[in-house]
Amino acid sequence: MTDTLPLHDLTALVRPQLDRLNRELVEDLAPGHREMLPLIEHVGGYRGKQLRPMLTFLSGMAVRGATHGGGLGDDVVTVAKVVELLHTATLLHDDVLDSATVRRRIPTVNHLSGTEVAVLLGDYIYARAFHMAVQLPDPTAARWLAETVRVICQGEITQVLHRFDGAWTEAQYFEVIAEKTASLYAAACRLGGHYAIGNREHDDRSGAPEARLRALEEYGLELGIAFQIVDDCLDLDGDEKVVGKSLGTDLSKGKITLPLLYLMQQSPAEAKRVEAVLGKTEGEALRSLRQEFALEHAVAYALGEAERRIAKAQASLSVLPAGPARDALHRLASFVTSRRL
Amino acid sequence: MTDTLPLHDLTALVRPQLDRLNRELVEDLAPGHREMLPLIEHVGGYRGKQLRPMLTFLSGMAVRGATHGGGLGDDVVTVAKVVELLHTATLLHDDVLDSATVRRRIPTVNHLSGTEVAVLLGDYIYARAFHMAVQLPDPTAARWLAETVRVICQGEITQVLHRFDGAWTEAQYFEVIAEKTASLYAAACRLGGHYAIGNREHDDRSGAPEARLRALEEYGLELGIAFQIVDDCLDLDGDEKVVGKSLGTDLSKGKITLPLLYLMQQSPAEAKRVEAVLGKTEGEALRSLRQEFALEHAVAYALGEAERRIAKAQASLSVLPAGPARDALHRLASFVTSRRL
Repeated sequence: MTDTLPLHDLTALVRPQLDRLNRELVEDLAPGHREMLPLIEHVGGYRGKQLRPMLTFLSGMAVRGATHGGGLGDDVVTVAKVVELLHTATLLHDDVLDSATVRRRIPTVNHLSGTEVAVLLGDYIYARAFHMAVQLPDPTAARWLAETVRVICQGEITQVLHRFDGAWTEAQYFEVIAEKTASLYAAACRLGGHYAIGNREHDDRSGAPEARLRALEEYGLELGIAFQIVDDCLDLDGDEKVVGKSLGTDLSKGKITLPLLYLMQQSPAEAKRVEAVLGKTEGEALRSLRQEFALEHAVAYALGEAERRIAKAQASLSVLPAGPARDALHRLASFVTSRRL
Repeated sequence: MTDTLPLHDLTALVRPQLDRLNRELVEDLAPGHREMLPLIEHVGGYRGKQLRPMLTFLSGMAVRGATHGGGLGDDVVTVAKVVELLHTATLLHDDVLDSATVRRRIPTVNHLSGTEVAVLLGDYIYARAFHMAVQLPDPTAARWLAETVRVICQGEITQVLHRFDGAWTEAQYFEVIAEKTASLYAAACRLGGHYAIGNREHDDRSGAPEARLRALEEYGLELGIAFQIVDDCLDLDGDEKVVGKSLGTDLSKGKITLPLLYLMQQSPAEAKRVEAVLGKTEGEALRSLRQEFALEHAVAYALGEAERRIAKAQASLSVLPAGPARDALHRLASFVTSRRL
């Protein structure tokens, strides 16, 4: 897939771990009834950039300054699998909520098998992920990730409740995207580091391990916020053929993202004009936005914010020992704002 | 509420525990954002018969032959809350799947706030429940309940995949209702017993504690199966005003329940006639079923099976020490087949 090319050399560092994860994931979901197998295999086909498991593995290496992924234990692999499954479950439900028909160029489960199966399969995958997390002897991942999923849902619900809300602010926007998107990136990074450190190192009185874990968490949080800002920009000015999903859906659903907030801040009259665009059909709304507004300025403003977040993410890496994993995390962050899909 | 009257004296035995549970549940769900509070409070209004937490408390008493609920520790209360929250989450998603507008005489979340909020709020409650479970020092509940939710979803998905399936069998029906309904009753009972027993008693070499826990699990399983059979009968021959929700929904959704399986087993011609009823609108299908088929025989057949399951549930209680809690579990089981709502 062309979209993984820029990530290729970063991936190479943890390729054996990613291969193992992909080999085991479908097996881990293997259902008790054979009727479900085609569904599970279909979801296996959604495999995307796998940023989150990559972050977990690289964080596990970076926290100890390791030069290769060979020293990562089984628990780090389990954490990466749980994070990827939780992400998959949120995608299934997102597609139901958005009535999406295509995900990563293949039909969505709701399009193929109906809303009911998609909602239930999402629940199934959530449950399976939690079950894997509670097998870990150290309960940190299970606790952190259950709380993370709660926070993700809280962010998503808050966003839905504020659709078409002309009083919606940038502060609220940033809080919601931190919750609904960045919290899982933060967890992927922090928990990768946590499970890569032996218990003896955790007890280190110098506080160094905790400072490193906090740095990884902050890195993931800022990276996730930047990722969501870019995603929100792509929904408005991306190329449908490149992005691989339908655009303008935020607009027609009344989701007020950062570029729109920029336009609305120009003047009360401009705010009214933007509000009038919300809720139009996707094509109509996009056309209107691209022709009648200074969309390029709005997107540039939003991407500027994303770049500031990336710089912040990269700066937080400084407390980690130098090495190829820290370098990879640094370059991975730059990839987020350069992506066009 | 009138429907709790027949349960009144059973409830009295664990009233302080149920009161505490209800006091704490809304607080436990308290969201980070105040926008969500009305939603949480609305869900609090769904309070039903609370059979599951009652089973957890009574099982905790019964396993030790306790005469009152005062000795039940905090962990048993946590387990009861987690089970009730997981049940609530499944109800929210069920209502989305059934496009239900009314639940326990109040509007459903999907009717009031839309599908998106209902799906996300279900996920939110699942996550919160798992988070509470993983706070328990003993990981048994978290592991058992994560697996139980997976099994519930597996049962639900399998049922959806076999709608309108003329080849559907009684064996498949019983397996699916054991998974989608009875597994949570079994967990509620077993875990209530498990957390009421001290660790020292668990280590008892005589095997008595494990035999009691298995008995409670079996009791819950058979009770749950009976409960679902009665539920399926009520959808066909209940009184809408008494049941408090719309009837005939299984029929119009193509769900082939035990009374229908009975009719279909009469002859291939009869099977064809039943299949023709499936998928009609609720009212039409119900009218046709009530006028053109021997529905009373079919329902009597199904209720006979439910009564056999109840007898089996009650028999399994014999390994528990005699006392008011064991008596209450015995009488609670009889209530299931006598209910008309």
